[in-house]
Formats: sequence, C-alpha cells, structure tokens
Amino acid sequence: MKKYLSLACVALCATTAFSQQALWGDTPLASPQINSDNTVTFRVKAPKAKTVKVTGDFLPETVVDIPNYGKVAAPGQADLVEKDGVWEYTTPQALSSEYYCYNVVIDGQKTIDPSNVYINRDVATITNYFIISNDKGDKGDLYKINDVPHGTIRKMWYDSPSLGMQRRLTIYTPAGYETSGKKYPVFYLLHGSGGDEEAWYTQGRISQILDNLIAAGKAVPMIVVMTNGNAYEQATCGESPAGFQQPQMVMGGVKEGMKEAAFELSFPDVRKFVEKNFRTINDKNHRAIAGLSMGSFHSEHISKYYAGEYGYVGLFSGSSVGDGRRGDGKASTSPVYKDFDKQMANLFSAKNKPALYFVAIGKTDFLKKGNDEFLAYMDAHKYPYEYLETEGGHIWRNWRIYFTEFSQKIFK
Amino acid sequence: MKKYLSLACVALCATTAFSQQALWGDTPLASPQINSDNTVTFRVKAPKAKTVKVTGDFLPETVVDIPNYGKVAAPGQADLVEKDGVWEYTTPQALSSEYYCYNVVIDGQKTIDPSNVYINRDVATITNYFIISNDKGDKGDLYKINDVPHGTIRKMWYDSPSLGMQRRLTIYTPAGYETSGKKYPVFYLLHGSGGDEEAWYTQGRISQILDNLIAAGKAVPMIVVMTNGNAYEQATCGESPAGFQQPQMVMGGVKEGMKEAAFELSFPDVRKFVEKNFRTINDKNHRAIAGLSMGSFHSEHISKYYAGEYGYVGLFSGSSVGDGRRGDGKASTSPVYKDFDKQMANLFSAKNKPALYFVAIGKTDFLKKGNDEFLAYMDAHKYPYEYLETEGGHIWRNWRIYFTEFSQKIFK
Repeated sequence: MKKYLSLACVALCATTAFSQQALWGDTPLASPQINSDNTVTFRVKAPKAKTVKVTGDFLPETVVDIPNYGKVAAPGQADLVEKDGVWEYTTPQALSSEYYCYNVVIDGQKTIDPSNVYINRDVATITNYFIISNDKGDKGDLYKINDVPHGTIRKMWYDSPSLGMQRRLTIYTPAGYETSGKKYPVFYLLHGSGGDEEAWYTQGRISQILDNLIAAGKAVPMIVVMTNGNAYEQATCGESPAGFQQPQMVMGGVKEGMKEAAFELSFPDVRKFVEKNFRTINDKNHRAIAGLSMGSFHSEHISKYYAGEYGYVGLFSGSSVGDGRRGDGKASTSPVYKDFDKQMANLFSAKNKPALYFVAIGKTDFLKKGNDEFLAYMDAHKYPYEYLETEGGHIWRNWRIYFTEFSQKIFK
Repeated sequence: MKKYLSLACVALCATTAFSQQALWGDTPLASPQINSDNTVTFRVKAPKAKTVKVTGDFLPETVVDIPNYGKVAAPGQADLVEKDGVWEYTTPQALSSEYYCYNVVIDGQKTIDPSNVYINRDVATITNYFIISNDKGDKGDLYKINDVPHGTIRKMWYDSPSLGMQRRLTIYTPAGYETSGKKYPVFYLLHGSGGDEEAWYTQGRISQILDNLIAAGKAVPMIVVMTNGNAYEQATCGESPAGFQQPQMVMGGVKEGMKEAAFELSFPDVRKFVEKNFRTINDKNHRAIAGLSMGSFHSEHISKYYAGEYGYVGLFSGSSVGDGRRGDGKASTSPVYKDFDKQMANLFSAKNKPALYFVAIGKTDFLKKGNDEFLAYMDAHKYPYEYLETEGGHIWRNWRIYFTEFSQKIFK
C-alpha cells in the first residue's frame, strides 16, 4: 500500500478544529510561570484592555462590603502592566509551598487566565489553579501527585429512598483495594454550602493527600465517601437530569418545603449503600464522619442523632446553631435538632463516646465566635475533644490542613 | 444555647471568597440562554472591548490556512453586538438536538464565556458546552443525563511493565456491576492524538450514551476501558507527577527515542490489569476495540497484531499508513507495523475473523482519501466490513455518532 497522510498530521487535527486554534491560532503565553525562586509571573494577552488584574488566594486578603450582609474577607487583587499588548505581573515575594487558585479580571470582568488550562469549578465559581512545591514534604508536596501507589476515584450513584431520588457521590478507595480482598474503615466526608460531591476531591485534593499519607505510613488505608449534602439535588449542577442550569448558591442545603433535616435523616441510605457495595468494617471504631462549614453542622448532628455509629467526628470551620435550630437558624421541631443537650449527653456516654471529637477553625473565620461558644459548651459539660486553631478564615487552605490532620488521627 | 450565626450565612461564605464574588461581585449573565424555539443567545459583559465574537461547532465551518500545513476546516465565528456594555448574539436558526461547544473571542483573545460554568478541557483546549435536547430521543437526549440507572466512572491507575510506569485510565462499569456478581464483555476505547484517557468520557459523553442505550435495551451492559494512548505519559496533563505543565499537542503518541509501536506493544498490560481487576468474560466474542483517529490507527494494528483477541473492531476517522509505516508515517521495522498484508490475512482467517470490522468516517474528513484507499484494499482482499459515512469532518460530533452506532452492534 502507498503511504497515506501520516498520523503526525492526524495528530494536529484529531480533537476538533478547536485544538487547531490552540495550536496555531493563539500560542498560549507562559502563565502562570513559576520562576526558579518560586515567585510567579502571570501573563494575559489583551491588547485593547484598559485594566487587567489578577485576584487570588496568594495575595493579601482585602475586605469587601456585601450589600445586606456586611464586610467579608475577599482575596486581594494586583494590577498587571501592559507591554506590546501583553499584560504581566510577578509576585513580589516567593510563594510558599501550597495549592493556589486565582482569576484574572479584564476591564472589570472576572474570567479565567486564557493561557492556563488548569481550571477548577466549585459550583458557580471557576478558578485557575497551580501548585508551588519545594520537595521538602510541605503542603504543596502533599497536595501534588507523586509517584506513589494511587487510589481509585469513583463517580457513582446510590438510591436514596428517604429523598426519593438517585443521588451521585464520589468515593476514594486506597491503592490495592480492588485486589486485596481486605475490609477497610470508612470516612464519610461532607462539603459546605455552595459545595457538592466533587468539592473535597477537587479543591480538597483528598485523593492526592491520602495517596501520599498512606504511602508514607502516616494514614491507614481507608475508604472515603463524599456525598452531596444539598438534599434537594441529585448531583452537582450539570451532572444530573436537571441539566445545565445556572448554578444557584445554596442556602443551607435544604429548600423551602423540604422535610427539616432531610439530609441527616437520609444519611442511613448512604451508609447502607456503601456497606453493601464496598468491603467495609462495620463498627463504630472503623467509621468516621467530618465536614466543613455546613458539613460540620451535618457531622455534628449526624454523630449525635445516630450516637454510637461514628467513632471519629471532625468539625471543620463550623458553628453549632444550638438547641432546636435547623440549618438556616430558624426554629425546628425535627428530632435531629431538638433536645441538643440530651443528644450530646448520649453521644458522650460511656457506650457511645467517640474515640476522637476533633474541632478545627481559623483565627479569622467569621464563625470563630460561634465555635468558641460551642467549645465553652463542650468544656462546661466536660466532653473531651481535640482542638486545632489555624491562621486565616473560612477557606480551602484551612480545610486541606484539617483533613490532613484528621485523616492521620483516625482508625488507629 | 443561644442562636449563633445561621448556616444560611455560612452558606454564603462556605466555599472561599471566590464564591462570594460569584454571589455578589458580578451577577452572571444568562449565557448561553437556550430559548423556547431552540435558538441560543450568548451574552458577554465587556464594556470596554472593541470586538466580541463567539466561535463554535454550531456555526457554519470556515477554512483556515495553517502555516506550513495548509487549509483546514475550522469552526465559524459570529459577531456579538454591544448594548450598555453587554455584548449579545442570538443564532438565526434553532439548533438541532446535539452537544455543542464554543468559545468567545474578546478583542482577538480566545477565552471562555465568563457566565457559563460548564467547561470541557481537551488537553490544551478549553471550551464551554451546552446541550440542545428535544425529548424525541435524538442525539441531545442520548447525550444528556436522564433519570435511568447510571453506571460508575472510575479514575484509576494500572502498572505497565512494558512502559515502565504507572498509568492512569478511565473505566465505565454499567449500572448494577458492583452487586450483580455477573461477568461482562469489555470494550477498549481509544482516543486520538491530542486526546487522553478523559476524552471519551468528557466530549465523547460515553457514560451518558451507554446509560441511556442500556436502559433502552439497545446496548448490552459492558465495561468500557479508556486508556491513555500517548505512550510517553503516565496520565493527562495535570494528573501525573509531571505536574501542571503547559500541555503540548501530541505528534502521534510516541516521542523520539521511544520504542516504535510502544503503545501497541504495551497494550497487553492494560488487558492483564482489566481482566485481573474486573469481572470480565475473557474470549474474543466478548472483547471489542475501537478508536478515533490515532486511536483508529492503534485499533487497526492491535487487532491484527494480536489477531484473534478482539472480536469487534471499530476504526473511526482513521487512515491506514500502510505496510511498515509507524504512526508518523516514517519507515518502521517494528513487528507491529511490518508485514501488513500477512497480518491482515491472518486477522481475517477463519480462526481469527472478527464478528464485526466497522469503519466510519465523515465525508469532509481530511483523511477520507486515505480511508477510501484502505476500503479499496479491504474490498480487493474480500475482507468483510461494515461502513458508515456521515456528513462533516474530523470532529467529536461524528465520533459520538460512531460510538453510538458501534456500541449497539457489539456483543450481540
């Protein structure tokens, strides 16, 4: 046979004409460029723009005043400077070992860095990301993919009779699960409002963290179950029959008309599914539950309402809403939320006491005051707990730290 | 206890300040807006821009002249019109039931639609996407998530001794796999150059297509294995120890210095892993292989070099490079590529003959001529095959059609 068009040429056209554009249309700039001294340079081609800024969690926080809400910490911004149609900014200092996310703002419109293909979606928020690592075992090294045995991430669906729907969850199984024949402990890991079943796997970097901790012998092999805490939806936006709606931010995780504590009351559906579909060790000492923000609220109530089922409890950046209050702070008659004192006493009874009750929050978290009062309540009742306080506020940087700490303390 | 800050408020801050921006900073515009008549409106806020265009596969193709390469079909562009700082374009006609992708071009810079959180990365190319469906069972209905039983998608790693590395793959198992105890046929599905182990799962929509076809009884439950055909890399960019490099487009799938036919020669590693880790039916009649473009090349050579192992072969938008030619068209001494006639004769011998040899290509595919000559070769040797010719070129729209057709013909 004669030689036809070579596959090298096929290569150039294989993905769709979009790729051709990427190849020949506009050569991507090096952005972000991590320099040898760990400063980072951002570049945006926008010849006709008036202003180009970068906003990210590596810049000093500013405070924004939110209409009808008040002042909230927000990531800082830095101005890029234009030369020959390319705007550029280099961080004045080296960035420490960490996972960072950012956006660019062109003439006031927040968007992504057109040269950076690494994008994370957190429900309604699109950000670019990059990692600074120093190979000293610091956070960046823990959050990146190293050449260690890797676990498996499953995106699968379970049936929730309580909520009357199929629902999606994300499950991490440790390296070797498929062939070991062994049974494993299970860690139920819950997201915050405005998050979903993908949050801990994407911004949380939990599969990278656990692969690395388990390979180093610092965490025991475990199954991690990340379900969707928004009881009214089947799955994250765009991954359910609801289609590609504009994501709406979530107020609490239940909606008007839903049964109070709908998620907490449906949680046995998740456990039942996991214990039927995976090789799990089904006792209190091999079952953990933790969550961030709304997920902390869920973990607090699930751990006491189903007292004796979870031997390890983690409350990250949370704040109890107290006796008889539901997620949005309104009065509730749900058995899940009422009789708070009685349920807490039952949780910390000799029979049900968790091996670890772990509370963590940032010094500038807007929930710090509520968390302090919760700790005062714990102290007043002599309920044992471990407490971790970090710098910063209600941010993923802290949740990755809390996950890293908590996951090394459980099932040991 | 007193009432603390309600979780409703936690909700507003739970994800990071980025989400606050999404909430309060800039209200996203409705874009894309699918109108009741299935026309689509795109909106971009860019008060200071000089020009804003949309480019997508729903617009008439244009031809771009690529330096040192020649003319290639590219997606058309349409101009948005500015009013009060918001640029807008509505398609003149209703769009048919289909999965579409697009970008916006602001002052010549290709980027995403800042209001559309639905983004697909195809190696170096970022596009927004949306689906038009008409609930008549057309393509859009097949490509969207419906309320049917859902399979599981696994992102996992296998060991490839031949390539000396851990490598990542994506695996679809049908609904019920986890608990059925049954064994399943396996479909090995290969991507094109410039693609990776995520391509068929993202732009290919294969988990939605199979969930829907299996639920309708049109395809049999099967395991689909999507490996990475670029033999020099462990995983898609950003998902391997190589880190977040700027993705380079792939020339063929091997690199200088690598063993010729490295991917084909390492393919038994994939099969071995799958058959060890999953409940598979291990015979020719329950094993299929197909791929697009470079993946068609791989499927063609793997099916004949390992004659008798794959009972169903699919060549999508491919072009044989003929006797003794490797992927980039250069001469090869690899046993995989040489003795083409002999290997084909062996493949179509009574003992090894596939139950289905399926060839599909688009009328305007730049590989059409090569494919025609390959079919002439098949005819001259009286090798049986099924042929599907569609409108359009070397694009995902066709590959979704070919997958849909092929997956309904196999294992029956």
